[in-house]
Amino acid sequence: MADKRHIVTLLTDFGTSDYFVSSVKGAIFCVNPNVELIDVTHSIPPQDIFAGAFMLRNAYNVFPRFSIHLAVVDPTVGSARRPIIVMTDNYNFVGPDNGIFSYIYKIEQVNRVVEIKAEHYYRSPLSPTFHARDIFAPVVGWLSKGVDPTKMGDVIEDYVKFNIPEPKEFGPNLIKGHVIHVDHFGNCVTNISENELTYERMDQNKVLVINNHQVRLFCTHYAECPDGEPCALFGSAGLLEISIPKGSAAHTLGANRGTEIAIHFA
Amino acid sequence: MADKRHIVTLLTDFGTSDYFVSSVKGAIFCVNPNVELIDVTHSIPPQDIFAGAFMLRNAYNVFPRFSIHLAVVDPTVGSARRPIIVMTDNYNFVGPDNGIFSYIYKIEQVNRVVEIKAEHYYRSPLSPTFHARDIFAPVVGWLSKGVDPTKMGDVIEDYVKFNIPEPKEFGPNLIKGHVIHVDHFGNCVTNISENELTYERMDQNKVLVINNHQVRLFCTHYAECPDGEPCALFGSAGLLEISIPKGSAAHTLGANRGTEIAIHFA
Amino acid sequence: MADKRHIVTLLTDFGTSDYFVSSVKGAIFCVNPNVELIDVTHSIPPQDIFAGAFMLRNAYNVFPRFSIHLAVVDPTVGSARRPIIVMTDNYNFVGPDNGIFSYIYKIEQVNRVVEIKAEHYYRSPLSPTFHARDIFAPVVGWLSKGVDPTKMGDVIEDYVKFNIPEPKEFGPNLIKGHVIHVDHFGNCVTNISENELTYERMDQNKVLVINNHQVRLFCTHYAECPDGEPCALFGSAGLLEISIPKGSAAHTLGANRGTEIAIHFA
Repeated sequence: MADKRHIVTLLTDFGTSDYFVSSVKGAIFCVNPNVELIDVTHSIPPQDIFAGAFMLRNAYNVFPRFSIHLAVVDPTVGSARRPIIVMTDNYNFVGPDNGIFSYIYKIEQVNRVVEIKAEHYYRSPLSPTFHARDIFAPVVGWLSKGVDPTKMGDVIEDYVKFNIPEPKEFGPNLIKGHVIHVDHFGNCVTNISENELTYERMDQNKVLVINNHQVRLFCTHYAECPDGEPCALFGSAGLLEISIPKGSAAHTLGANRGTEIAIHFA
Repeated sequence: MADKRHIVTLLTDFGTSDYFVSSVKGAIFCVNPNVELIDVTHSIPPQDIFAGAFMLRNAYNVFPRFSIHLAVVDPTVGSARRPIIVMTDNYNFVGPDNGIFSYIYKIEQVNRVVEIKAEHYYRSPLSPTFHARDIFAPVVGWLSKGVDPTKMGDVIEDYVKFNIPEPKEFGPNLIKGHVIHVDHFGNCVTNISENELTYERMDQNKVLVINNHQVRLFCTHYAECPDGEPCALFGSAGLLEISIPKGSAAHTLGANRGTEIAIHFA
Repeated sequence: MADKRHIVTLLTDFGTSDYFVSSVKGAIFCVNPNVELIDVTHSIPPQDIFAGAFMLRNAYNVFPRFSIHLAVVDPTVGSARRPIIVMTDNYNFVGPDNGIFSYIYKIEQVNRVVEIKAEHYYRSPLSPTFHARDIFAPVVGWLSKGVDPTKMGDVIEDYVKFNIPEPKEFGPNLIKGHVIHVDHFGNCVTNISENELTYERMDQNKVLVINNHQVRLFCTHYAECPDGEPCALFGSAGLLEISIPKGSAAHTLGANRGTEIAIHFA
């Protein structure tokens, strides 16, 4: 069993210049030194729950079954907001009940959501400002050792989810959506999926408008598009993104999160 | 014994855009591939020994007993400054003898400090500019394999420590301290601990003054304080910090490391 | 065999604020959870193949034999550029055939270069924009499990390499080179090695000129040089670098990658 190490992913807004992330890891190791820790990112903008939720959406499902996903963007740490475990067939998710799992609730078949209450699983003394270290980390440790989530608290139904911003259709010839993420390369990831832009529609004549720029090139990969030209393609997150090969679409098009886009069909 | 892997933490000012950190890790693995490496941070401002020492203070003691802490902020690498191992009951610390362990000397019962001298434990050839890779990393590797630190050199007593900046009391109604760290969220961590601001005094009427701003709200957690309002609370490092929920206290109050604070009691 | 874990290093231009790096790691773990993953850096400037190649040069050879090095800077992902495995006696290198292994071809005895073609080793479905996750990561996973690289494709000879910029000698008294990397500390790493600046020549009277600044101090380590003074020394990469102890040479001398340097001998 020695090589059967549980994988734990970590996604936070803690940054990497402080001791915060390492303390979470140390607290997990205190419970179970035999886990494999993988950072998703710690660069979620401070307290930006939506950005955390969207990043988790893109990150979680590449991991092997039974991985545990810890996601902490927690502006109201120490308040009445509840610590929870979200159970699906493949994964357990651990974090605050503030909407950070909204995409998971939408995409996955959720079996149970457990409000963590069993304080004997916590680190002691409990800091009121650092639940990631003192509650979430040890809970992750115990989960990785096989403790049943339902032993750690009560099943709840009224967990918090925010509305996921959906694109809108205006008749058969117009879809409006917006940029929900700008990635490291300046690609503008929109909320348009293949549900809206079906194979059929990909064949139609169409133009995407963003900040008064017209994008007419719809590609399947970056290399298909001339350097410096904006193009639209489905990226690895399964969403339409506007990209400029060897450039930054966000910079060139003046776009950022929230920027509206429209697709007009001929 | 397969799951009995030694934990090694790494704290440096090397940044993460170069090969430096990975070379340290590779050099440790060359001696002992069976260690678990955890980054504390590599974003200590270049050559800022104090910042490194303070970060180590906050990071080390969450880790399981027998973890090894490597801390390298080393502006005079290659000079006469000594490589050392600091031994406490729970941990071994490895790094340069330049004051980076000053907080450890103050907080922990130090059993021995060993000047590393046994060159057969070094990586060869020894680079004069990269002792982290060529001295500290292999020494960490050997320690993690159970080599006794005292076999690696001589016990010394004259190890370097700097004066830790302490708050001062001016009569019964005034404490002066200063900001010693601004964290990722803009929280201003001061050098005021519960030694100065006792439970008793927390109950007294008082005002904290920082850069002509008055902070009257003393809380126990962030969520207690209205958004956008500065408050003071004891953070996870056990020190009083000035925080603005959903904002940056450092930015709003114009504070940074070194900024004076005063607490006046009524 | 439980502690015989393959080391895999990762070097990309993916940044650390997205899910990209974690997806590569997750995809490796899906094939072989029993690997040890080490980040070299993910901060290569986007699509800067040269910078990636140079960083790999400096990073790879500290690692134990049989480590696998994954290097992905891949501006033309999804195009006709080939995925390859570069085999040397000590390591396997995995990445795109776009020149990123140019330094390896120059320094190492390359046994074989294999174009990866065996799609049953890929992750499925294959994304056209994320070969690091869908091709390179599983290939690394299978290599770490002992699959022979030559089972994954065909040996090729016409792999891509760029010309490595070499210093030039103008008679016996002048060498010209340039800065090829500025590191985290502001040190300006040049392409001058001990091949050009031999022991003999290090003893000669000489001056290094960079952006009209004259550097006369040639040292062996940083601490030899007065604070704030520019000096030249051979750094841990085996290349001459211009450094300012407790300062940034790049900033003070206005230098960056590409800046010319000249060494005049008396």
